[in-house]
This record gives sequence, C-alpha cells and structure tokens, in this order.
Amino acid sequence: MSDKVRRYLLAYDVESDARRNRVAKTLESYGDRLQYSVFVVDAKPAKLIRLKAAVTDKLDVATDSLLVCDLGPLSGGDRIEFIGVARPFTGQGPLVI
Amino acid sequence: MSDKVRRYLLAYDVESDARRNRVAKTLESYGDRLQYSVFVVDAKPAKLIRLKAAVTDKLDVATDSLLVCDLGPLSGGDRIEFIGVARPFTGQGPLVI
Repeated sequence: MSDKVRRYLLAYDVESDARRNRVAKTLESYGDRLQYSVFVVDAKPAKLIRLKAAVTDKLDVATDSLLVCDLGPLSGGDRIEFIGVARPFTGQGPLVI
Repeated sequence: MSDKVRRYLLAYDVESDARRNRVAKTLESYGDRLQYSVFVVDAKPAKLIRLKAAVTDKLDVATDSLLVCDLGPLSGGDRIEFIGVARPFTGQGPLVI
C-alpha cells in the first residue's frame, strides 16, 4: 500500500445523539466538516486506520453506519462541488459559485 | 466532456422537512440511497445536468447545501466502504464485512 496522502469523504448515520456527537467530534479532529454528517479527511494509510478504529469504537455497528469514500490522491484535483451553502475546507481548489 | 458514465456521491443538508423530502425523492429517482442524506448516482453528463437542475429547483440555496462528489468512471473500482450498517447499491463490488 503506497504511503501517499489520499483524500477521503466520510459520512455517518448514527441513531443516538450522544454517539453522533462523539463521532462528529472524532471526525472533526481528523479533518473538515463539509455538512452536518459529511467530512473530508486527507490521510496516509496509518492515519486512516487510526481514524477508522477511533470511530468504530464509538459506533453501534448494528444500527449505525460510517461510509468511507476514497477520493484518491490529493493531486487528483477537486472532486467536490457544492450547490447552495458551501463550507471551505483545507486544500480546496478555487470556490466556483 | 467525455460522454461516459461516471459515479457521483451526493449529500445534502436541507433545513426544512418539506424541502428535504422533495430533494430525497428526486435523488432516489436518479440513484441509490446509501444513508439518510447520502446517495450514489451513476450518470452521463446530460443526466447529471438534469439532476442538478431538478435538485437546485427544490433547494433554498441561501440555507441548504448539496454536495456533489465525482468518483470517476465506473471502471474506477469500488471507492465506497461501510463500517456498520451497509446499504447495497447498483453496481457495487463484493460487500466485505
């Protein structure tokens, strides 16, 4: 596995407010919040493994869901576009409105 | 712009319940729901343009947000992984739990 930084989009569906807040806090410590339940994280493999462990620890895997989407290397250009309210994030290309 | 099918991840933050339901219904007519506010859509450029217009029409762009993330060509392999509850979607690779 290459040790390069890749960009990930993460989104959760968490039933309980308490768990949801803990998951959100954890994800915010790793990256930027784009929407209420959607985050972007730039990570090398080791950081992603730590993030997944930290979040899984706070989920009820029987009812909750964490989606992890690999957007590829940072050099892959900007894959994220907003319509309406757009939250800036680290390493974002020019914001086109 | 190539006329090939690409995969898109879409997520929304919509303030009002009525608008949110209309946006969700619209997105479900174009693709699969992965989480409460996250969808995956496989589309050629023309379909994506129609989708964006149909959703923008139902948003209050001053308060609501639609995130559109280009995951690349379908041949790009599976970029989406779940921890916990996983909803199957069209064209998904083998589900690893």
